[in-house]
Amino acid sequence: MKNSPVDPIALTADLVRCPSVTPDEGGALVLLEKLLRGAGFTCHRVDRGGVANLFARWGEKGAEKTFGFNGHTDVVPLGDKAAWTMPPFGARQKDGYLWGRGATDMKSGVAAFVAAAVDLVQNDPPEGAIILTITGDEEGDAIDGTTALLDWMQLWGEAMDVCLVGEPTCPDHMGEMIKIGRRGSLSAWFTLTGVQGHSAYPHRACNPLPAMARLMDRLSSHVLDEGTEHFDASTLAVVTIDTGNPATNVIPAECRATVNIRFNDAHDSKGLIAWMQDELDNVAEEFGIAGKLTVKVSGESFLTPPGRLSDLVAAAVEAETGVKPIFSTTGGTSDARFVKDHCPVVEFGLVGRTMHQVDERVAVDQISQLKSIYSRILQDYFA
Amino acid sequence: MKNSPVDPIALTADLVRCPSVTPDEGGALVLLEKLLRGAGFTCHRVDRGGVANLFARWGEKGAEKTFGFNGHTDVVPLGDKAAWTMPPFGARQKDGYLWGRGATDMKSGVAAFVAAAVDLVQNDPPEGAIILTITGDEEGDAIDGTTALLDWMQLWGEAMDVCLVGEPTCPDHMGEMIKIGRRGSLSAWFTLTGVQGHSAYPHRACNPLPAMARLMDRLSSHVLDEGTEHFDASTLAVVTIDTGNPATNVIPAECRATVNIRFNDAHDSKGLIAWMQDELDNVAEEFGIAGKLTVKVSGESFLTPPGRLSDLVAAAVEAETGVKPIFSTTGGTSDARFVKDHCPVVEFGLVGRTMHQVDERVAVDQISQLKSIYSRILQDYFA
Ligand SMILES: [Zn+2]
Ligand SMILES: [Zn+2]
Repeated sequence: MKNSPVDPIALTADLVRCPSVTPDEGGALVLLEKLLRGAGFTCHRVDRGGVANLFARWGEKGAEKTFGFNGHTDVVPLGDKAAWTMPPFGARQKDGYLWGRGATDMKSGVAAFVAAAVDLVQNDPPEGAIILTITGDEEGDAIDGTTALLDWMQLWGEAMDVCLVGEPTCPDHMGEMIKIGRRGSLSAWFTLTGVQGHSAYPHRACNPLPAMARLMDRLSSHVLDEGTEHFDASTLAVVTIDTGNPATNVIPAECRATVNIRFNDAHDSKGLIAWMQDELDNVAEEFGIAGKLTVKVSGESFLTPPGRLSDLVAAAVEAETGVKPIFSTTGGTSDARFVKDHCPVVEFGLVGRTMHQVDERVAVDQISQLKSIYSRILQDYFA
Repeated sequence: MKNSPVDPIALTADLVRCPSVTPDEGGALVLLEKLLRGAGFTCHRVDRGGVANLFARWGEKGAEKTFGFNGHTDVVPLGDKAAWTMPPFGARQKDGYLWGRGATDMKSGVAAFVAAAVDLVQNDPPEGAIILTITGDEEGDAIDGTTALLDWMQLWGEAMDVCLVGEPTCPDHMGEMIKIGRRGSLSAWFTLTGVQGHSAYPHRACNPLPAMARLMDRLSSHVLDEGTEHFDASTLAVVTIDTGNPATNVIPAECRATVNIRFNDAHDSKGLIAWMQDELDNVAEEFGIAGKLTVKVSGESFLTPPGRLSDLVAAAVEAETGVKPIFSTTGGTSDARFVKDHCPVVEFGLVGRTMHQVDERVAVDQISQLKSIYSRILQDYFA
C-alpha cells in the first residue's frame, strides 16, 4: 500500500512559519534539507553572496532521465504589518485558506513538489533522477539565487533534462494556465546634459529638455513589434522624466528619464540597447547636447515552444482538475529566465492572486491538488 | 547764476543708506517726498498692498506738456552677505565707485532724475509739468507698485504725455543703449493626468509621459516668429519636466512641465495661451488623457517705435557723452510694460553691470553724466 510520507499542507504551514524575508533563510532551507536527506536525497547548500540555496538530488548524477523542480522559499516583506488580519508567519487555517506571507508565492509550491518527489522515490522509485533547486533569493536581486545553483551544477556536472518551476501561474482558477515563456525586461536610464542659462536668452544656453522630449517621443511611439506566435507585443514604457528646476527664468543643464521595456522573442537586450543608443546619438547630434545611457537587463525573454514538456504538464493538470490549461507567456520575470539556458523549462503552480499582498493566503485544497498534479507529472515523465 | 540745489551723488548715497529691500520702504520715499515738497512738488503717497509708492508733480495738473519719470527705490536682497567687501547699505566711495545695494538698480537713476527735475523747476521753470512716479515694488511681484501709481493717476485725472524710465540700460559703456520696448513674458504650467499601472501591462494603464514628450516637442520645435522690425525672435523655453516616479515597474499617473515664453510684438499673451491650449487639447485627444494648463503673464510686449521721444533722448545722450545710442528691445521685463498703456515710454539709464550682484556699485561720474543727460532731455522737451 502506497502512502504519502510528506503532507504538503503541513509542510506549507511549517515553511510559512519560517520568517524567510529575502535574504534571510529563516529556517526554511534547513527544514527542507533535513526532510530531503531523510528521504534519501543528496543535498548541498549552495550559499553565495549572503544568500542560502539548496540543491537536492535523488538518483544518480548523469542518469538517463532527470526531472527538475525549481522554486524559492524567500518571501517579500510584510508591507503594512498592522493591516494583516492574521499573523503573517502564523500559518493559521481559516475559511478553507492557509494564511501567511509566502502561502502562495511560493512555499505551497515548494511543499507540493517536495511532497510529490518524496512520495515517488519512496513509494515508486523511478528509473532516473529528480533534482530540486530551491533558492532563498528570488524576490531580491536574484543574483546569487537560482543562478548560483545553476553555476554550481555546471561546475559539478549536474544537469536536468527538463525543469518545472513551481511559481503560481493561474490568474483565477486552479489549472487554467501554464507558462511556457516570459517576456524579457530591461530598464534604461537616460541623462541629457546641456548648458544652463537664462530663459530670456535661450540661444546662450543649451536646453536638454526639447531633446529629451523628442527622444522620449521617438522611443515611445516606435512599434517594437506586433507580437509573435507565442507572445504579446513588446512594450516600452517611459516611467519617469525629471528635471527638478523650480525657476521659470532658468534653463536647466540636465534632464533624466527612465524607460522600461518588456520584450518578446523578436528581440534581445543587445539589439534593444543598440537601438536606444542610436536614437540617443541621433537626438544628441540634432540638438548639440551630450547624452548618457545606462541599462540594467533583468532578464532576456525565454520560450519553451509547446511540445513534450508542456504537453506532459498540461495532460496532468487536465487529468487532476478537469481544466484544460492554456499556454501563456504573460506576466513579469521569474527564475525560469535563468533555467532556460540549461534545459527546457515551463512553469505551473496554483492561483497567485494574493501574492505580495497583505493577508496572502492559499486555498488549502489547491495545495493537495498541486501535489497530485506534480505527482502525476513525475509518474508520466518516468513511465 | 544757475546752480544745482540737489547733488545727485549725495542723494544716491542717502538713498543707498536706506535699507529698502522689497517690500520695505526703508526711509527712501520719505526722504524723497520731503526733498520734493521742499522744491515745490505736490506729493502723494500711493501705498497699496503693504507697498509704498510716491507720486510727485511740479506744475499744473493737465498742463499742455507733461514729462514723466518713472523709477523704483526698492532693491533686491543682499545675497551672500559675507561676500560683500563693502557695507551693502554703507554708500562708501572708493576707486571712483559708490558701493552698495541699489547703487545702479536704481537709486542713482532716481537721484539723477530727481536732481534734474528740481534743477529745472528751480532755475529755469518750464511751461508745463513734470511728474515723478517712484515705486517701492518693482523687484517684487510689482502688483502694487507702478500699477498702483498709474491706477491712482487715472482716478485723479493725472497724466503724462511721455515717460522716461530710469532703469540702467547700458550693457558696458555709458550712453550706448536706449530701450524702446521689451519682449513680453509668460510662464505656463502643464499637468497631464492618466492612469497609474504596471510597466508590464501598459495597455491597462494610461501613461501621461509619451503625451508630455509629444507636447513639449511640439511646443519647443514650433517657430513663433523670425523676429520683427524692432525685436529679436520670440523664444519658448521648456524649463522643467517632472514626474518623480522612483519605480521602474510603475507607470505614473501624472506628469508636470513648465514653459517660459518671451514674446515680441508679433504676439500677445492671449494668442499664445490659445495656441498652447490648442496643442494641449490635441495631444490630450491623441493620447486619451486629461490635461490642465495654468498661465501667469508677467507682462505683454511693448514698443514705442523710434520717433520724437526716443530721438529726444538719443540726442541728449549723444550731446552729453559723445556716444550715439542704439535703440534696443532686449532684456527682461521692466515697469515700462505698465506705463506703455498710458503714454509713449522709453528707458535710459547708466551701466547696470553689477545690478543684483554682491558688491553692486556705480561709477560716480556716471551719476553726474546721467543727471546732465536728464537735465538736457527736460530742457529740450520744454524748449
Ligand atoms: Zn515567486
Ligand atoms: Zn531696476
